[in-house]
Amino acid sequence: MPLHFTTEQRLDDGVLERGFSLDGIPGILWTPAPSSAPAPLILLGHPPLGLPAMHPRLAARARLAAADGFASATIELPGSGERPRLDAVDQARSALRRALAAGEPVSDEIIDALVLPLVDKAVPEWRATLDALLTLPEITGPVGYSGGVISIGVRLAAVEPRVVAAVLYAGSYIPRAIVEEARTVGIPLHVLLQWDDEGNDRQAALELFDAFGSREKCLNANMGGHTGVPAHAGEAAGRFLARHMR
Amino acid sequence: MPLHFTTEQRLDDGVLERGFSLDGIPGILWTPAPSSAPAPLILLGHPPLGLPAMHPRLAARARLAAADGFASATIELPGSGERPRLDAVDQARSALRRALAAGEPVSDEIIDALVLPLVDKAVPEWRATLDALLTLPEITGPVGYSGGVISIGVRLAAVEPRVVAAVLYAGSYIPRAIVEEARTVGIPLHVLLQWDDEGNDRQAALELFDAFGSREKCLNANMGGHTGVPAHAGEAAGRFLARHMR
Repeated sequence: MPLHFTTEQRLDDGVLERGFSLDGIPGILWTPAPSSAPAPLILLGHPPLGLPAMHPRLAARARLAAADGFASATIELPGSGERPRLDAVDQARSALRRALAAGEPVSDEIIDALVLPLVDKAVPEWRATLDALLTLPEITGPVGYSGGVISIGVRLAAVEPRVVAAVLYAGSYIPRAIVEEARTVGIPLHVLLQWDDEGNDRQAALELFDAFGSREKCLNANMGGHTGVPAHAGEAAGRFLARHMR
Repeated sequence: MPLHFTTEQRLDDGVLERGFSLDGIPGILWTPAPSSAPAPLILLGHPPLGLPAMHPRLAARARLAAADGFASATIELPGSGERPRLDAVDQARSALRRALAAGEPVSDEIIDALVLPLVDKAVPEWRATLDALLTLPEITGPVGYSGGVISIGVRLAAVEPRVVAAVLYAGSYIPRAIVEEARTVGIPLHVLLQWDDEGNDRQAALELFDAFGSREKCLNANMGGHTGVPAHAGEAAGRFLARHMR
Protein backbone atom coordinates (compact mmCIF):
# COMPACT_ATOMS: atom_id res chain seq x y z
CA MET A 1 0.00 0.00 0.00
CA PRO A 2 1.72 3.24 -1.11
CA LEU A 3 1.94 6.25 1.13
CA HIS A 4 0.76 9.64 -0.21
CA PHE A 5 2.13 12.86 1.17
CA THR A 6 -0.64 15.40 1.75
CA THR A 7 1.16 18.38 3.34
CA GLU A 8 4.75 19.57 3.64
CA GLN A 9 6.27 22.14 5.96
CA ARG A 10 9.90 23.01 6.75
CA LEU A 11 10.13 23.89 10.47
CA ASP A 12 12.46 26.63 11.70
CA ASP A 13 15.05 24.09 12.89
CA GLY A 14 15.22 22.58 9.41
CA VAL A 15 13.07 19.56 10.26
CA LEU A 16 10.75 18.57 7.42
CA GLU A 17 7.21 17.77 8.61
CA ARG A 18 4.98 15.99 6.10
CA GLY A 19 1.43 14.82 6.54
CA PHE A 20 0.64 11.57 4.78
CA SER A 21 -2.19 9.18 4.13
CA LEU A 22 -1.85 5.42 4.00
CA ASP A 23 -4.95 3.43 3.04
CA GLY A 24 -7.02 6.32 4.38
CA ILE A 25 -5.17 6.54 7.72
CA PRO A 26 -3.65 9.99 8.36
CA GLY A 27 -0.08 10.17 9.60
CA ILE A 28 2.86 12.55 10.05
CA LEU A 29 6.52 12.06 9.19
CA TRP A 30 9.31 14.25 10.53
CA THR A 31 12.78 13.99 8.99
CA PRO A 32 15.94 15.78 10.19
CA ALA A 33 17.39 18.71 8.30
CA PRO A 34 18.71 17.49 4.93
CA SER A 35 21.83 15.37 4.95
CA SER A 36 23.14 12.59 2.77
CA ALA A 37 22.55 9.73 5.22
CA PRO A 38 19.12 8.11 5.66
CA ALA A 39 17.79 8.48 9.21
CA PRO A 40 16.81 5.65 11.58
CA LEU A 41 13.12 5.85 12.45
CA ILE A 42 11.25 6.27 15.73
CA LEU A 43 7.54 5.40 15.74
CA LEU A 44 5.81 7.88 18.04
CA GLY A 45 2.88 6.39 19.92
CA HIS A 46 0.23 8.58 21.55
CA PRO A 47 -2.97 8.28 23.57
CA PRO A 48 -6.30 8.00 21.70
CA LEU A 49 -7.05 11.73 21.79
CA GLY A 50 -6.76 12.35 18.05
CA LEU A 51 -3.69 13.42 16.08
CA PRO A 52 -4.75 17.09 15.74
CA ALA A 53 -4.91 17.43 19.54
CA MET A 54 -1.66 15.51 20.04
CA HIS A 55 0.22 17.33 17.26
CA PRO A 56 2.10 19.93 19.35
CA ARG A 57 3.46 17.35 21.81
CA LEU A 58 4.34 14.87 19.04
CA ALA A 59 6.10 17.57 17.01
CA ALA A 60 8.14 18.56 20.08
CA ARG A 61 9.24 14.94 20.60
CA ALA A 62 10.02 14.57 16.88
CA ARG A 63 12.17 17.72 16.86
CA LEU A 64 14.18 16.47 19.86
CA ALA A 65 14.70 13.16 18.06
CA ALA A 66 15.68 14.98 14.84
CA ALA A 67 18.41 16.80 16.76
CA ASP A 68 19.85 13.33 17.45
CA GLY A 69 19.58 12.44 13.76
CA PHE A 70 16.39 10.38 13.96
CA ALA A 71 13.27 10.53 11.80
CA SER A 72 9.92 10.16 13.58
CA ALA A 73 6.51 9.07 12.36
CA THR A 74 3.06 8.59 13.77
CA ILE A 75 -0.39 7.58 12.55
CA GLU A 76 -3.92 8.21 13.81
CA LEU A 77 -5.27 5.47 16.08
CA PRO A 78 -8.35 3.46 15.07
CA GLY A 79 -11.49 5.22 16.33
CA SER A 80 -9.68 8.52 17.04
CA GLY A 81 -9.54 11.89 15.33
CA GLU A 82 -11.32 11.85 11.99
CA ARG A 83 -11.31 8.07 11.70
CA PRO A 84 -14.57 6.09 12.13
CA ARG A 85 -15.48 5.38 15.75
CA LEU A 86 -14.99 1.84 17.09
CA ASP A 87 -18.43 1.10 18.50
CA ALA A 88 -17.33 -1.81 20.69
CA VAL A 89 -14.58 0.31 22.27
CA ASP A 90 -16.99 3.22 22.79
CA GLN A 91 -19.40 0.86 24.57
CA ALA A 92 -16.59 -0.47 26.75
CA ARG A 93 -15.60 3.13 27.59
CA SER A 94 -19.18 3.81 28.70
CA ALA A 95 -19.14 0.66 30.83
CA LEU A 96 -15.83 1.79 32.34
CA ARG A 97 -17.29 5.22 33.21
CA ARG A 98 -20.34 3.62 34.81
CA ALA A 99 -18.15 1.28 36.88
CA LEU A 100 -15.91 4.16 38.03
CA ALA A 101 -18.90 6.39 38.82
CA ALA A 102 -20.48 3.59 40.85
CA GLY A 103 -17.21 2.95 42.69
CA GLU A 104 -17.21 -0.62 41.38
CA PRO A 105 -14.06 -2.52 40.43
CA VAL A 106 -13.27 -2.45 36.71
CA SER A 107 -13.74 -6.01 35.45
CA ASP A 108 -11.35 -7.88 33.20
CA GLU A 109 -14.18 -8.01 30.65
CA ILE A 110 -14.37 -4.21 30.47
CA ILE A 111 -10.58 -3.88 30.21
CA ASP A 112 -10.38 -6.49 27.45
CA ALA A 113 -13.24 -4.86 25.50
CA LEU A 114 -11.67 -1.41 25.92
CA VAL A 115 -8.14 -2.29 24.88
CA LEU A 116 -7.87 -5.47 22.82
CA PRO A 117 -9.87 -4.33 19.74
CA LEU A 118 -7.71 -1.21 19.60
CA VAL A 119 -4.50 -3.26 19.81
CA ASP A 120 -5.75 -5.82 17.26
CA LYS A 121 -6.54 -3.08 14.75
CA ALA A 122 -3.70 -0.63 15.45
CA VAL A 123 -0.68 -2.95 15.42
CA PRO A 124 -1.13 -4.17 11.81
CA GLU A 125 -1.59 -0.53 10.79
CA TRP A 126 1.68 0.51 12.45
CA ARG A 127 3.42 -2.44 10.74
CA ALA A 128 1.99 -1.45 7.32
CA THR A 129 3.16 2.12 7.98
CA LEU A 130 6.62 0.76 8.71
CA ASP A 131 6.56 -1.19 5.42
CA ALA A 132 5.72 2.00 3.52
CA LEU A 133 8.12 4.33 5.35
CA LEU A 134 11.09 1.99 5.00
CA THR A 135 10.77 2.19 1.20
CA LEU A 136 11.56 5.92 1.35
CA PRO A 137 15.22 6.70 0.60
CA GLU A 138 15.46 9.16 3.51
CA ILE A 139 14.43 6.52 6.10
CA THR A 140 16.29 3.45 7.29
CA GLY A 141 16.35 0.98 10.13
CA PRO A 142 16.80 0.25 12.92
CA VAL A 143 13.37 1.23 14.19
CA GLY A 144 12.48 2.33 17.71
CA TYR A 145 9.06 2.79 19.31
CA SER A 146 8.19 5.38 21.92
CA GLY A 147 5.12 6.19 23.98
CA GLY A 148 1.40 5.87 23.51
CA VAL A 149 -1.07 3.21 24.62
CA ILE A 150 1.19 0.75 26.43
CA SER A 151 -0.71 -2.34 25.27
CA ILE A 152 -0.08 -1.34 21.64
CA GLY A 153 3.61 -0.90 22.46
CA VAL A 154 3.77 -4.33 24.10
CA ARG A 155 2.14 -6.08 21.12
CA LEU A 156 4.34 -4.23 18.62
CA ALA A 157 7.49 -5.06 20.62
CA ALA A 158 6.38 -8.70 20.76
CA VAL A 159 5.57 -9.22 17.08
CA GLU A 160 7.54 -6.70 14.98
CA PRO A 161 11.17 -7.77 14.56
CA ARG A 162 12.19 -4.47 12.96
CA VAL A 163 11.56 -2.66 16.26
CA VAL A 164 14.84 -3.00 18.18
CA ALA A 165 14.06 -0.97 21.33
CA ALA A 166 11.01 0.62 22.90
CA VAL A 167 10.20 3.38 25.35
CA LEU A 168 6.86 2.59 27.02
CA TYR A 169 4.73 4.90 29.17
CA ALA A 170 3.10 3.03 32.04
CA GLY A 171 -0.69 3.13 31.90
CA SER A 172 -3.68 1.49 33.50
CA TYR A 173 -6.18 -1.04 32.16
CA ILE A 174 -3.80 -3.66 30.84
CA PRO A 175 -5.53 -6.87 29.67
CA ARG A 176 -4.21 -10.12 31.17
CA ALA A 177 -3.49 -11.30 27.60
CA ILE A 178 -1.13 -8.34 27.14
CA VAL A 179 0.73 -9.19 30.37
CA GLU A 180 1.21 -12.69 28.96
CA GLU A 181 2.45 -11.25 25.64
CA ALA A 182 4.91 -9.13 27.62
CA ARG A 183 6.66 -12.34 28.71
CA THR A 184 7.55 -12.96 25.04
CA VAL A 185 9.11 -9.51 24.52
CA GLY A 186 12.90 -9.72 24.26
CA ILE A 187 14.02 -6.27 23.05
CA PRO A 188 15.53 -3.63 25.35
CA LEU A 189 12.83 -1.61 27.09
CA HIS A 190 12.76 1.72 28.93
CA VAL A 191 9.53 2.11 30.91
CA LEU A 192 8.47 5.54 32.20
CA LEU A 193 6.17 5.55 35.22
CA GLN A 194 4.72 8.63 36.91
CA TRP A 195 4.81 7.39 40.51
CA ASP A 196 2.25 9.89 41.81
CA ASP A 197 -0.18 9.62 38.88
CA GLU A 198 -3.41 9.06 40.82
CA GLY A 199 -5.33 8.02 37.72
CA ASN A 200 -2.86 5.21 37.11
CA ASP A 201 -2.76 1.70 38.59
CA ARG A 202 0.82 1.62 39.83
CA GLN A 203 0.69 -2.02 40.89
CA ALA A 204 -0.48 -3.08 37.42
CA ALA A 205 2.40 -1.10 35.89
CA LEU A 206 4.94 -2.80 38.17
CA GLU A 207 3.48 -6.24 37.38
CA LEU A 208 3.72 -5.56 33.66
CA PHE A 209 7.32 -4.39 34.03
CA ASP A 210 8.11 -7.56 35.95
CA ALA A 211 6.51 -9.70 33.23
CA PHE A 212 8.65 -8.41 30.33
CA GLY A 213 11.02 -11.12 29.15
CA SER A 214 13.69 -8.63 28.08
CA ARG A 215 17.15 -9.16 29.51
CA GLU A 216 17.63 -5.39 29.42
CA LYS A 217 14.74 -3.42 30.86
CA CYS A 218 14.80 -0.20 32.86
CA LEU A 219 12.00 1.25 34.96
CA ASN A 220 12.30 5.02 35.35
CA ALA A 221 9.74 6.25 37.89
CA ASN A 222 9.33 9.93 38.68
CA MET A 223 7.08 12.42 40.42
CA GLY A 224 5.05 15.17 38.77
CA GLY A 225 1.62 13.67 38.14
CA HIS A 226 0.13 12.22 34.95
CA THR A 227 1.48 14.80 32.52
CA GLY A 228 4.47 16.00 34.57
CA VAL A 229 7.22 13.76 33.18
CA PRO A 230 10.39 15.68 34.17
CA ALA A 231 12.65 16.93 31.38
CA HIS A 232 15.53 14.75 32.61
CA ALA A 233 13.32 11.64 32.25
CA GLY A 234 12.52 12.54 28.65
CA GLU A 235 16.22 13.05 28.00
CA ALA A 236 17.04 9.67 29.57
CA ALA A 237 14.48 7.99 27.30
CA GLY A 238 16.09 9.71 24.31
CA ARG A 239 19.53 8.50 25.38
CA PHE A 240 18.15 4.95 25.71
CA LEU A 241 16.83 4.98 22.13
CA ALA A 242 20.02 6.54 20.79
CA ARG A 243 22.08 3.84 22.55
CA HIS A 244 20.13 1.05 20.88
CA MET A 245 19.57 2.60 17.45
CA ARG A 246 23.14 3.54 16.59
CA MET B 1 38.04 17.24 65.73
CA PRO B 2 40.90 17.75 63.25
CA LEU B 3 41.53 15.42 60.37
CA HIS B 4 45.05 13.98 59.87
CA PHE B 5 46.23 12.86 56.47
CA THR B 6 48.05 9.54 56.66
CA THR B 7 48.85 8.71 53.02
CA GLU B 8 49.00 10.60 49.74
CA GLN B 9 49.06 9.31 46.17
CA ARG B 10 48.61 11.08 42.82
CA LEU B 11 46.68 8.76 40.48
CA ASP B 12 47.49 8.61 36.77
CA ASP B 13 44.48 10.79 35.86
CA GLY B 14 45.72 13.51 38.20
CA VAL B 15 43.29 12.72 41.02
CA LEU B 16 44.85 13.12 44.47
CA GLU B 17 43.95 10.22 46.80
CA ARG B 18 44.69 10.81 50.48
CA GLY B 19 44.08 8.49 53.40
CA PHE B 20 43.06 10.25 56.58
CA SER B 21 42.18 9.57 60.18
CA LEU B 22 39.52 11.42 62.14
CA ASP B 23 39.19 10.55 65.82
CA GLY B 24 40.62 7.13 65.01
CA ILE B 25 38.27 6.47 62.07
CA PRO B 26 40.08 5.78 58.79
CA GLY B 27 38.86 7.55 55.67
CA ILE B 28 39.84 8.41 52.10
CA LEU B 29 39.57 11.73 50.25
CA TRP B 30 39.83 12.04 46.47
CA THR B 31 40.20 15.51 44.94
CA PRO B 32 40.23 16.34 41.22
CA ALA B 33 43.42 17.27 39.39
CA PRO B 34 44.65 20.66 40.70
CA SER B 35 42.64 23.70 39.74
CA SER B 36 41.95 27.02 41.36
CA ALA B 37 38.32 26.35 42.34
CA PRO B 38 37.35 24.32 45.41
CA ALA B 39 35.39 21.18 44.52
CA PRO B 40 31.87 20.27 45.70
CA LEU B 41 31.94 17.06 47.75
CA ILE B 42 30.27 13.67 47.29
CA LEU B 43 30.17 11.38 50.33
CA LEU B 44 30.62 7.83 49.07
CA GLY B 45 28.68 5.26 51.08
CA HIS B 46 29.52 1.56 50.92
CA PRO B 47 28.36 -1.78 52.37
CA PRO B 48 29.92 -2.95 55.66
CA LEU B 49 32.64 -5.06 54.05
CA GLY B 50 35.59 -2.95 55.19
CA LEU B 51 37.26 -0.06 53.38
CA PRO B 52 40.28 -2.11 52.15
CA ALA B 53 37.96 -4.55 50.35
CA MET B 54 35.78 -1.73 48.98
CA HIS B 55 38.72 0.47 47.92
CA PRO B 56 38.89 -0.44 44.20
CA ARG B 57 35.17 0.17 43.60
CA LEU B 58 35.16 3.37 45.67
CA ALA B 59 38.24 4.69 43.85
CA ALA B 60 36.58 3.99 40.49
CA ARG B 61 33.48 5.94 41.55
CA ALA B 62 35.62 8.78 42.91
CA ARG B 63 37.58 9.04 39.65
CA LEU B 64 34.36 9.26 37.62
CA ALA B 65 33.14 12.01 39.96
CA ALA B 66 36.50 13.81 39.71
CA ALA B 67 36.12 13.92 35.94
CA ASP B 68 32.95 15.95 36.60
CA GLY B 69 34.86 18.25 38.98
CA PHE B 70 33.70 16.68 42.25
CA ALA B 71 35.73 15.65 45.27
CA SER B 72 34.72 12.39 46.99
CA ALA B 73 35.25 11.11 50.50
CA THR B 74 34.43 8.02 52.51
CA ILE B 75 35.03 6.68 56.00
CA GLU B 76 35.11 3.20 57.49
CA LEU B 77 31.79 2.03 58.93
CA PRO B 78 31.47 1.24 62.66
CA GLY B 79 32.31 -2.43 63.26
CA SER B 80 33.95 -2.90 59.83
CA GLY B 81 37.52 -3.22 58.60
CA GLU B 82 40.03 -2.52 61.38
CA ARG B 83 37.50 -0.81 63.63
CA PRO B 84 36.22 -2.57 66.79
CA ARG B 85 33.37 -5.01 66.18
CA LEU B 86 29.85 -3.99 67.23
CA ASP B 87 28.85 -6.96 69.39
CA ALA B 88 25.12 -6.24 69.27
CA VAL B 89 25.16 -6.06 65.46
CA ASP B 90 27.22 -9.25 65.22
CA GLN B 91 24.68 -11.02 67.44
CA ALA B 92 21.84 -9.76 65.26
CA ARG B 93 23.68 -10.98 62.16
CA SER B 94 23.92 -14.45 63.74
CA ALA B 95 20.21 -14.36 64.52
CA LEU B 96 19.52 -13.33 60.92
CA ARG B 97 21.58 -16.25 59.58
CA ARG B 98 19.77 -18.69 61.88
CA ALA B 99 16.37 -17.37 60.74
CA LEU B 100 17.33 -17.60 57.05
CA ALA B 101 18.80 -21.10 57.49
CA ALA B 102 15.63 -22.23 59.25
CA GLY B 103 13.47 -20.70 56.53
CA GLU B 104 11.81 -18.48 59.14
CA PRO B 105 10.65 -14.93 58.48
CA VAL B 106 13.15 -12.28 59.58
CA SER B 107 11.52 -10.46 62.50
CA ASP B 108 11.38 -6.68 62.93
CA GLU B 109 13.43 -7.20 66.11
CA ILE B 110 16.29 -8.78 64.17
CA ILE B 111 16.18 -6.07 61.49
CA ASP B 112 16.18 -3.29 64.08
CA ALA B 113 19.06 -4.86 66.00
CA LEU B 114 21.03 -5.40 62.80
CA VAL B 115 20.63 -1.93 61.32
CA LEU B 116 19.71 0.75 63.87
CA PRO B 117 22.91 0.61 66.00
CA LEU B 118 24.94 0.96 62.80
CA VAL B 119 22.87 3.97 61.66
CA ASP B 120 22.97 5.57 65.12
CA LYS B 121 26.74 5.35 65.25
CA ALA B 122 27.62 5.97 61.61
CA VAL B 123 25.56 9.08 60.84
CA PRO B 124 27.20 11.33 63.50
CA GLU B 125 30.59 10.12 62.23
CA TRP B 126 29.73 11.06 58.63
CA ARG B 127 28.55 14.47 59.87
CA ALA B 128 31.78 15.02 61.85
CA THR B 129 33.73 14.04 58.73
CA LEU B 130 31.77 16.63 56.80
CA ASP B 131 32.62 19.28 59.44
CA ALA B 132 36.32 18.47 59.07
CA LEU B 133 36.40 18.19 55.26
CA LEU B 134 34.55 21.45 54.71
CA THR B 135 37.34 23.32 56.56
CA LEU B 136 39.79 22.28 53.81
CA PRO B 137 40.36 25.01 51.20
CA GLU B 138 40.09 22.52 48.31
CA ILE B 139 36.59 21.36 49.36
CA THR B 140 33.31 23.26 49.28
CA GLY B 141 29.58 22.67 49.34
CA PRO B 142 27.09 21.68 48.17
CA VAL B 143 27.41 18.11 49.39
CA GLY B 144 25.93 15.01 47.80
CA TYR B 145 25.65 11.48 49.15
CA SER B 146 25.86 8.30 47.10
CA GLY B 147 25.46 4.61 47.82
CA GLY B 148 26.06 2.32 50.75
CA VAL B 149 23.74 1.03 53.46
CA ILE B 150 20.43 2.60 52.47
CA SER B 151 19.28 3.16 56.07
CA ILE B 152 22.37 5.30 56.71
CA GLY B 153 21.62 7.28 53.56
CA VAL B 154 18.02 7.84 54.65
CA ARG B 155 19.02 9.10 58.12
CA LEU B 156 21.74 11.34 56.67
CA ALA B 157 19.33 12.78 54.08
CA ALA B 158 16.79 13.38 56.84
CA VAL B 159 19.06 15.12 59.38
CA GLU B 160 22.00 16.72 57.54
CA PRO B 161 21.01 19.98 55.85
CA ARG B 162 24.34 20.30 54.00
CA VAL B 163 23.47 17.21 51.90
CA VAL B 164 21.45 18.59 48.97
CA ALA B 165 20.86 15.41 46.93
CA ALA B 166 21.36 11.68 47.42
CA VAL B 167 21.77 8.58 45.29
CA LEU B 168 20.55 5.57 47.27
CA TYR B 169 21.02 1.88 46.45
CA ALA B 170 17.93 -0.16 47.33
CA GLY B 171 18.66 -2.83 49.93
CA SER B 172 16.81 -5.22 52.19
CA TYR B 173 16.27 -5.20 55.96
CA ILE B 174 14.97 -1.68 56.40
CA PRO B 175 13.71 -0.95 59.95
CA ARG B 176 10.16 0.46 60.23
CA ALA B 177 11.65 3.48 62.01
CA ILE B 178 13.76 4.23 58.92
CA VAL B 179 10.68 4.06 56.66
CA GLU B 180 9.07 6.62 58.96
CA GLU B 181 12.19 8.83 58.79
CA ALA B 182 12.00 8.59 54.99
CA ARG B 183 8.72 10.52 55.14
CA THR B 184 10.66 13.50 56.54
CA VAL B 185 13.26 13.51 53.73
CA GLY B 186 12.76 16.44 51.37
CA ILE B 187 15.89 16.55 49.20
CA PRO B 188 16.00 15.23 45.61
CA LEU B 189 16.65 11.48 45.54
CA HIS B 190 17.77 9.05 42.86
CA VAL B 191 17.15 5.43 43.95
CA LEU B 192 18.86 2.56 42.14
CA LEU B 193 17.13 -0.81 42.34
CA GLN B 194 18.38 -4.06 40.81
CA TRP B 195 15.02 -5.54 39.81
CA ASP B 196 16.27 -9.13 39.56
CA ASP B 197 18.42 -9.10 42.71
CA GLU B 198 17.14 -12.28 44.36
CA GLY B 199 18.81 -11.45 47.67
CA ASN B 200 16.87 -8.19 47.84
CA ASP B 201 13.36 -7.55 49.12
CA ARG B 202 11.93 -5.66 46.14
CA GLN B 203 8.62 -4.90 47.82
CA ALA B 204 10.41 -3.32 50.80
CA ALA B 205 12.45 -1.19 48.40
CA LEU B 206 9.32 0.01 46.59
CA GLU B 207 7.60 0.81 49.91
CA LEU B 208 10.60 2.83 51.04
CA PHE B 209 10.68 4.72 47.73
CA ASP B 210 6.99 5.47 48.12
CA ALA B 211 7.55 6.75 51.68
CA PHE B 212 10.13 9.41 50.79
CA GLY B 213 8.68 12.89 51.25
CA SER B 214 10.81 14.40 48.48
CA ARG B 215 8.98 16.26 45.77
CA GLU B 216 11.66 15.12 43.33
CA LYS B 217 12.49 11.43 43.54
CA CYS B 218 13.44 9.03 40.76
CA LEU B 219 13.43 5.24 40.91
CA ASN B 220 15.80 3.71 38.38
CA ALA B 221 15.30 -0.07 38.28
CA ASN B 222 17.44 -2.31 36.09
CA MET B 223 18.35 -5.92 35.43
CA GLY B 224 21.73 -7.53 36.01
CA GLY B 225 21.59 -9.01 39.49
CA HIS B 226 22.94 -7.69 42.79
CA THR B 227 26.26 -6.37 41.51
CA GLY B 228 25.28 -5.90 37.84
CA VAL B 229 24.26 -2.23 37.86
CA PRO B 230 24.51 -1.30 34.15
CA ALA B 231 27.01 1.39 33.17
CA HIS B 232 24.20 3.63 31.88
CA ALA B 233 22.53 3.52 35.32
CA GLY B 234 25.76 4.63 36.99
CA GLU B 235 26.03 7.44 34.46
CA ALA B 236 22.42 8.50 35.10
CA ALA B 237 23.15 8.65 38.84
CA GLY B 238 26.19 10.81 38.12
CA ARG B 239 24.09 13.15 35.96
CA PHE B 240 21.53 13.41 38.77
CA LEU B 241 24.18 14.51 41.28
CA ALA B 242 25.78 16.91 38.81
CA ARG B 243 22.35 18.47 38.12
CA HIS B 244 21.76 19.18 41.81
CA MET B 245 25.28 20.12 42.88
CA ARG B 246 26.01 22.75 40.24
